[in-house]
Amino acid sequence: MSSVEPVPVAMSGSIEGAAVPLDITVRFAETDQMGVVHHSEYVVWFEAGRVAWMEAAGMPYTEIAGAGFNFAVTDLQCRYRNAIRFGDPVQVVTRLGIFRSRQIEFLYSIRNRETEVIYADGHTRHICVDSAGRMTRVPGWIAERLNRAAAIRACGG
Amino acid sequence: MSSVEPVPVAMSGSIEGAAVPLDITVRFAETDQMGVVHHSEYVVWFEAGRVAWMEAAGMPYTEIAGAGFNFAVTDLQCRYRNAIRFGDPVQVVTRLGIFRSRQIEFLYSIRNRETEVIYADGHTRHICVDSAGRMTRVPGWIAERLNRAAAIRACGG
Amino acid sequence: MSSVEPVPVAMSGSIEGAAVPLDITVRFAETDQMGVVHHSEYVVWFEAGRVAWMEAAGMPYTEIAGAGFNFAVTDLQCRYRNAIRFGDPVQVVTRLGIFRSRQIEFLYSIRNRETEVIYADGHTRHICVDSAGRMTRVPGWIAERLNRAAAIRACGG
Amino acid sequence: MSSVEPVPVAMSGSIEGAAVPLDITVRFAETDQMGVVHHSEYVVWFEAGRVAWMEAAGMPYTEIAGAGFNFAVTDLQCRYRNAIRFGDPVQVVTRLGIFRSRQIEFLYSIRNRETEVIYADGHTRHICVDSAGRMTRVPGWIAERLNRAAAIRACGG
Repeated sequence: MSSVEPVPVAMSGSIEGAAVPLDITVRFAETDQMGVVHHSEYVVWFEAGRVAWMEAAGMPYTEIAGAGFNFAVTDLQCRYRNAIRFGDPVQVVTRLGIFRSRQIEFLYSIRNRETEVIYADGHTRHICVDSAGRMTRVPGWIAERLNRAAAIRACGG
Repeated sequence: MSSVEPVPVAMSGSIEGAAVPLDITVRFAETDQMGVVHHSEYVVWFEAGRVAWMEAAGMPYTEIAGAGFNFAVTDLQCRYRNAIRFGDPVQVVTRLGIFRSRQIEFLYSIRNRETEVIYADGHTRHICVDSAGRMTRVPGWIAERLNRAAAIRACGG
Repeated sequence: MSSVEPVPVAMSGSIEGAAVPLDITVRFAETDQMGVVHHSEYVVWFEAGRVAWMEAAGMPYTEIAGAGFNFAVTDLQCRYRNAIRFGDPVQVVTRLGIFRSRQIEFLYSIRNRETEVIYADGHTRHICVDSAGRMTRVPGWIAERLNRAAAIRACGG
Repeated sequence: MSSVEPVPVAMSGSIEGAAVPLDITVRFAETDQMGVVHHSEYVVWFEAGRVAWMEAAGMPYTEIAGAGFNFAVTDLQCRYRNAIRFGDPVQVVTRLGIFRSRQIEFLYSIRNRETEVIYADGHTRHICVDSAGRMTRVPGWIAERLNRAAAIRACGG
């Protein structure tokens, strides 16, 4: 895990393979009566990070969904390390994990973008489904971009 | 399902007509750091009340949606009277308000089902849209049931 | 309503009285099976707009809450004009409405930040409550900033 | 409340021990544009199941929170097996997993209460924190009830 540090990469249309940061402004509605962000919101933030990653990798989720495909979640795991409060400067950093013909994995780190304290980390695993919800192969143009991202990652990207 | 007519219930105070009650168990996730239920959740509860009303009126929302129609919200109003806490015994009481060929209104009261203290009340107004999101007339079988409910209300049911 | 056009103001620490824009990236979780953003999410976005307005007016909500005060919502109204889809470039524009010693009103417009098509507009009204949830006067330092904002607004700001 | 012991229920298949079932009515707001329940909602349902379990075990969460304690989530895992649609008869079945002086684990199964098809299963792990958010031992009266539940489970209850 020592190599898992999110790689600060210049944001641009060409970000692929690497870690994509997304700043989150905590919403008051996301807090609970313990005075901290409710743990279910992290899952929504993971998704926001994933969508930002796909946008940066040149495969916007609107295009994937527009073409009739979706990345259905099959597995979710989250480790909560430090509570998040309203006003905290939150950042989700998303990376591609495993990519196989039938499975895509994303890795997430939620951190304080100023102190870099880690609030939580986790992963989601996905299968590609068509508009009828049937499992299908990842379409070629998406697979190509994911392969490119995986290659960059393997090179230490 | 044809026997699941709206139950004319004499509710407290001035609530009359085919009022359909729905008990709500407050979820911890619905609280915020003020220690009360976040005001946006009431809108979700209004919807849950509306769905229960439609079920009771013999027009389950799953059937409406299954037939390719939806009741899109055009107007929302809510008056918040008393804060709701985790553990409070909440009940949403839903009634039909206006029903015209192009508009349906539902009226809501959120109350403590033991003390009958009113937490909030409000309304939503809707138009009927088809699966492409275009405004359309309320389909005959739904209009019939809405008219029946409106008649019961007019009779002071 | 003709004067209600959100006033494009240069974002800075000194924005007061005027319309404060906040860009929103629609989250996939915010859509529903009609393929559009669920109407309850607009209420959360209103709140995000309000928090941004307070920040811009020099009264961050974290400070207000930190001092033991909250702006509890008493009234909510929303008019839905056009459906919002995942990927739409959304912006909430927030302005101060009424400000009296016992009531604060915020006005919202949710629009497409490219086409300026209006998706929805509405308002919320608030009272100031202390940490025990009791209604109280708006604290002096906050009232001062609100008055300044109201004055700027009256001058056509 | 002292008579509200966890009910040892023989559930389908291998679900054993003090399994507490909770029926869930899917809310329209919980669906997404894939036409299924959004995966983040399962986390909220796990929590609802946990709260029902605690109520059944004679340790209502309102009392725990009222005494200044909370069960903060440290780990979350969910395996999604079948999509859930609006109208599906959902049930969350919650059991106690591990219970140690510093860790409590709950196990969940989300299933169709008619067909018993499993939609998802998972677990959450918790530490006990005081009102300042500091980790603390599980208070005696709660530990006692958890031990009793663990004993019932060990006896194959």
